Amino acid sequence: MPMPDGDILDAANDGDATSFIQPVMDEVADAVDRHFDSLLAIPDDPRSRLIEAMRHAAMGGGKRLRPLLVVASCDLFHIDRDRALRVGTAIESIHVYSLVHDDLPCMDDDDLRRGKPTVHKAFDEATAVLAGDALHALAFEILTDDATHPDPHVRSELVAELARASGQSGMAGGQMMDLAAGDGAFDLATITRLQQMKTGALIGFCVEAGAIMAKLPPEGRTPLRGYARDIGLAFQIADDILDVAGDEDRAGKALHKDAEAGKQTYVSLMGLDRAREQARALVDQAIAHLSGFGKEADLLRAIARFVVERDR
Amino acid sequence: MPMPDGDILDAANDGDATSFIQPVMDEVADAVDRHFDSLLAIPDDPRSRLIEAMRHAAMGGGKRLRPLLVVASCDLFHIDRDRALRVGTAIESIHVYSLVHDDLPCMDDDDLRRGKPTVHKAFDEATAVLAGDALHALAFEILTDDATHPDPHVRSELVAELARASGQSGMAGGQMMDLAAGDGAFDLATITRLQQMKTGALIGFCVEAGAIMAKLPPEGRTPLRGYARDIGLAFQIADDILDVAGDEDRAGKALHKDAEAGKQTYVSLMGLDRAREQARALVDQAIAHLSGFGKEADLLRAIARFVVERDR
Repeated sequence: MPMPDGDILDAANDGDATSFIQPVMDEVADAVDRHFDSLLAIPDDPRSRLIEAMRHAAMGGGKRLRPLLVVASCDLFHIDRDRALRVGTAIESIHVYSLVHDDLPCMDDDDLRRGKPTVHKAFDEATAVLAGDALHALAFEILTDDATHPDPHVRSELVAELARASGQSGMAGGQMMDLAAGDGAFDLATITRLQQMKTGALIGFCVEAGAIMAKLPPEGRTPLRGYARDIGLAFQIADDILDVAGDEDRAGKALHKDAEAGKQTYVSLMGLDRAREQARALVDQAIAHLSGFGKEADLLRAIARFVVERDR
Repeated sequence: MPMPDGDILDAANDGDATSFIQPVMDEVADAVDRHFDSLLAIPDDPRSRLIEAMRHAAMGGGKRLRPLLVVASCDLFHIDRDRALRVGTAIESIHVYSLVHDDLPCMDDDDLRRGKPTVHKAFDEATAVLAGDALHALAFEILTDDATHPDPHVRSELVAELARASGQSGMAGGQMMDLAAGDGAFDLATITRLQQMKTGALIGFCVEAGAIMAKLPPEGRTPLRGYARDIGLAFQIADDILDVAGDEDRAGKALHKDAEAGKQTYVSLMGLDRAREQARALVDQAIAHLSGFGKEADLLRAIARFVVERDR
C-alpha cells in the first residue's frame, strides 16, 4: 500500500506543521552536526577507526526529533538556545548509540539506516559495539560540561534523568521487552508499556529537559509529562503505520520488517484505520496538555502534528 | 610454565600485601554485591531476563580492585565509607559492562569469565549487548544519587571524569587500539599508550575519586595521578605475566590467549624476567609517589603490592 504524499494520516493534516518547523529543524540539524564534528575530531592513532565509526553513526542524518524537542521544551522557559542544543546533542548521542547497537546482527540485523550502511556493515561488528559504547559515554561528558548549564544541580539532574531514561527501566529495558515480543504473544497493553520504555522514556526526558534547566519544581512538569507520553505513543503508532504503508526510499531504511518477523504492532493489533485514528487522537490530546501555555508552546504543538505527518 | 604459589613475581614479595588487604577486600566485595542486589531487583515482566543477565555479570565475582582503590583513595581524605562504596559500585558497573561487551564473539570471543560462562553464553548475544548498555547507564544513575555525595558539584565532576575515563579517549578508545593491535605491529610505547587508555584511565579515576569527593584542587592530585599511572601499568604487566605463567583454575578464565592470537604484550616484547623487574619497579615507584602521606595511605601502598602478587 503506497503512502499518500507527505502525510501518513492522509487527509487529516494539511502538512502545515512540517513547513512550520522546517526552519527550526534545519537549524537544529546543523547545530547537532557541528557539535558532533567538534566532539569527534579524528585522532592520528588507531582510535581513528572508532571515531570515524562514531561520526558515521552520529552525523549527517536523522530527523533530530529529540534535539528538536529539547529546543521546543527550552523555548517554553526562555532557555538559551546554545544550551538547549548541547543537551539535545547529548540525547541524540544516546539515541544514536542505541540505533548502532539495535542494528547489530544479534539484535535487529539491519543493513541500512538513514539511507546509509549501518555501522557494522560500513566497519565491523566490534567497531559498532565500541562506537555505541563511546557515544553512550559522550552523552554524559556533554551534559557535565559547564557550557551546558552553570548550575551543577541542573547538570547532575540532567545526567540522572538521562541515565534513568536510557537504562534498565527505560530504553534498554524496553528493547529487551521488544526482543521478547518476537514470539508475538503481546497484547496492546504490553506493547504500550514496551513502547513507553523503549522510546517514550527518552522522549519524555527531551520534553522535560527545559523544565529541568529552568529549575521548575517537579509538580509543575505534569502537563509536559502528559504531552510527552501522548506524542511518544503517537510517534510509535506512526512508525508502525510507516512500516506497513511507508516508502523505503523516503524512510531510508528497510520497511515491512515487523510483519516479516511476525511481530505484533499497533497496526497488526488495531488495523490501519484504527491506528491512524488513535494517532490523531493522541496528537490532539498532546496539544490539549499545553493549554496553559501561550505562543511559546507553538513549536511543541507543531512537533506533535509533525510526528504523525512525517514520512520517515 | 606453572606459576609459583601465590606470587607471580616469585620471591620478590612475601604475600603480606594480600593478607593485609584481605579484610577490606572482603568488606568491599560484600558491599558491592549488596548494592548490585538492591539496584537490580528482578521485575515481574519480560525485562527480568535483562536484569538476570546484569546480575550474572555484576554479582558474586571479580577482585573488585576498582572499588577497593576508591575506598583506599577515600581513606586518604576521611571520606565516609558508604559514599566511597557507592562510587566504587558505579565504577565497577562500568568495568563489568566493558567485560560483557569485550567477551562478545565479535570482540574477544570468551566463553568463561570469573569461573562462570560469559553473559552471551549463559543468555544470548542480544541480551549481553543490552545488559552491558544497561550497566553502563546504571553507573551514572548511581553517581547522581544524593546519597553518593551531597554536593552536586562533586556529583557532576564524578560523572564528567567517569565518562571521560570510559569513552573514546579512555577505555573504549583503548579497546579499539587493542583490536587494531591484533596485527602484532605495535611497539612498547604504543602498547603502553593503549594500556593507559584501556585500563589505566578507569584506574586513574578510581584513585582520584577520593580527591574529587574531598574537593581537593586539581594541583593537589599530582601524586595520586603518578601512583595510578604506575599501578595501572604494573597491573597490565602482571596480567600479561599471568597470561603466560598463570593457572587457569585460579584465574577463572582462559589464559595463553595473547600468544595464541599472536598479540604483542609486555612479556612478548620484554621477556618474562624483564617484565617482572619492570612490574616490581613500577610498584616501588607508585609507593614513592605516596611519600607525602602517612598511615592513611597504607591501603593504597598494600594495593600496589597486591597488584603484582595476585594470581587472578
